[in-house]
Amino acid sequence: MSTQLTVPTLLVDEGKVRTAIQRMVAKADQNNVVFRPHFKTHQSRKVGEWFLEAGVAKITVSSVKMARYFADAGWNDITIAFPFNVHETEALNAFPEETTIQILIADAYAVAPILHRLKRPVNALIKIDTGYGRTGFQPDDDASIQRILAVLKPSFFISFAGFLAHAGHSYKAGGDKALIKSINTETCNQMAALGAQYRNQFPDLVLSIGDTPCCSVADSFPGVTEIRPGNFVFYDLAQSDIGSCSLDEVAVCMAVPVVAKHADRKRIITYGGGVHFSKDVIETGAEKRWGKVVEWTEQGWEPGDSGWKIISFSQEHGVLEADDYETFEEYAVGDWVPILPVHSCLTADAMKSYQTLDGVTLDHCEGS
Amino acid sequence: MSTQLTVPTLLVDEGKVRTAIQRMVAKADQNNVVFRPHFKTHQSRKVGEWFLEAGVAKITVSSVKMARYFADAGWNDITIAFPFNVHETEALNAFPEETTIQILIADAYAVAPILHRLKRPVNALIKIDTGYGRTGFQPDDDASIQRILAVLKPSFFISFAGFLAHAGHSYKAGGDKALIKSINTETCNQMAALGAQYRNQFPDLVLSIGDTPCCSVADSFPGVTEIRPGNFVFYDLAQSDIGSCSLDEVAVCMAVPVVAKHADRKRIITYGGGVHFSKDVIETGAEKRWGKVVEWTEQGWEPGDSGWKIISFSQEHGVLEADDYETFEEYAVGDWVPILPVHSCLTADAMKSYQTLDGVTLDHCEGS
Repeated sequence: MSTQLTVPTLLVDEGKVRTAIQRMVAKADQNNVVFRPHFKTHQSRKVGEWFLEAGVAKITVSSVKMARYFADAGWNDITIAFPFNVHETEALNAFPEETTIQILIADAYAVAPILHRLKRPVNALIKIDTGYGRTGFQPDDDASIQRILAVLKPSFFISFAGFLAHAGHSYKAGGDKALIKSINTETCNQMAALGAQYRNQFPDLVLSIGDTPCCSVADSFPGVTEIRPGNFVFYDLAQSDIGSCSLDEVAVCMAVPVVAKHADRKRIITYGGGVHFSKDVIETGAEKRWGKVVEWTEQGWEPGDSGWKIISFSQEHGVLEADDYETFEEYAVGDWVPILPVHSCLTADAMKSYQTLDGVTLDHCEGS
Repeated sequence: MSTQLTVPTLLVDEGKVRTAIQRMVAKADQNNVVFRPHFKTHQSRKVGEWFLEAGVAKITVSSVKMARYFADAGWNDITIAFPFNVHETEALNAFPEETTIQILIADAYAVAPILHRLKRPVNALIKIDTGYGRTGFQPDDDASIQRILAVLKPSFFISFAGFLAHAGHSYKAGGDKALIKSINTETCNQMAALGAQYRNQFPDLVLSIGDTPCCSVADSFPGVTEIRPGNFVFYDLAQSDIGSCSLDEVAVCMAVPVVAKHADRKRIITYGGGVHFSKDVIETGAEKRWGKVVEWTEQGWEPGDSGWKIISFSQEHGVLEADDYETFEEYAVGDWVPILPVHSCLTADAMKSYQTLDGVTLDHCEGS
């Protein structure tokens, strides 16, 4: 590994990222749906440029701050796919005039406080719960949907644009691709039914779905107009477990230096813990996985069985244990260990920058 | 709650912080030990000033970057209490000449790569494992300690200063204060034994301990020369569980806005999840606690039973459930909910800034 690194670093394999982008662009094209990738995973102007070069023009983010970061980078059609926080109406007003903004409405009471403060046009999407059960309206909850449409109708600045769903229950598929496909079908069907009901009234109705498992595994999205996957740009250990990707496709890898060795217990201490990876962990019964130790190659890393297990992450420390002494001797103090993160979104958010395999530093939006 | 907030905000109660500092200063004075607080919890110049005003002159940090942040803020005696990362020797060389720096050695092999690159004086502390089992040398491991002393001896720039321990096993006390005190006694005894062995040779020998549970609960630290607690400055839900503090003493509280309500399941959705709080969770059997919902008062917050339970945190969403409908109706969309964090160090690191109850914004070191 490059000797230029000095501290824990999040490496990104640009080739893998561009391949993932191309594949999703092609899938959206084949299905004649808008591809509006979620940028909350990478939160990077530079990675955004790779999307732009692949023909992407519309994006999704998860906060007003992130929307502003990408608007300032030149993106001019942005969906903020988080139930709108009424305290950020002034921040919306301050966006460049040329930015088309979609906000998400998950509660009728979120509309009124916006109405009298909003001073620029925004489009509103209504959040639909297609089975995840976190937030949003049931697709057949006509009363609530009609209430929001009624509240929006007299508004000078807010235009109803359509419906948005996040089938987050696909994250519990546990490697069952048939289950992911059935969740996708069910979600598409529910959105299509909304389309049948409202398209006469709203001819340009947006029907947007977009979790990474469904968008990665399913081949078609019948009845919807838009997909918004985000995590697929990097993937991670969690997505590999879900069945969205192979470990080979994971495009980010942490590099952490060894700071101490303990031969008596075949353990090494790395500089790299919860403040770097986040404290997200995959629990399978009693087993906890904080990440996966992989192996360096000439070109980057590869995910074979390294013989190392991550015992724990505390705030800055990682504790890694080797299967045997031969493996234990692979790393000396100062060597770099490659570790695939459990959740690339949270790791990227904690690290706040990347380095490509060519040694180029990429920025990341500050704050979230 | 203040209507000036617009996004999830980490509130800090300056009065509680100053009280905690004063109490620890007094305890150190009574015991005639140096108080070298760990600044990794707050990572804030401004909170640092509150320590300075209480007479603190020496500090502890967990990274070279954090050391630099505080050196630039005027602190000139800094211990970097993490096994030294050999790749940061150049960064050490770049510190202001007047900064006294202690680095931590947890492996003899970490010394050689430093020796030929170091161009400024630093003091070295040897990491001792008093029972936590993460890293460091056993207190009776003379051979390893002598080996490090031998490696350090010919060095022009590195001076051996003493021994440092972190009794992290106190974090597993589960509210048993007698256990915390016995861990403190055992740790002090082990450090005192090292003192007896090495003080003839090194008259100014540092014997440093410093976990928050032991420093909060124990009344005396016989045989050691220095304490380094850090988390006590804010405390948190985890420290309350351990037995280090009462919930009243927790000095930071997240304020998160309600973005949607679901009457059918008595749940509200808040803007505030893993990217704000960190994904740290307290697990007690099958129960998971992501934080504790408390109640607003005129002066700030108080920790009584609010009737709310945190069901889950995802990346930006919090899902909170009320015990009954009366409680459910306490919050409208746009209202702010006060939540004590599980782990204040990680929440502060994720949030990267604070707001005092007077509405003043305090900075936080960027990166970790």
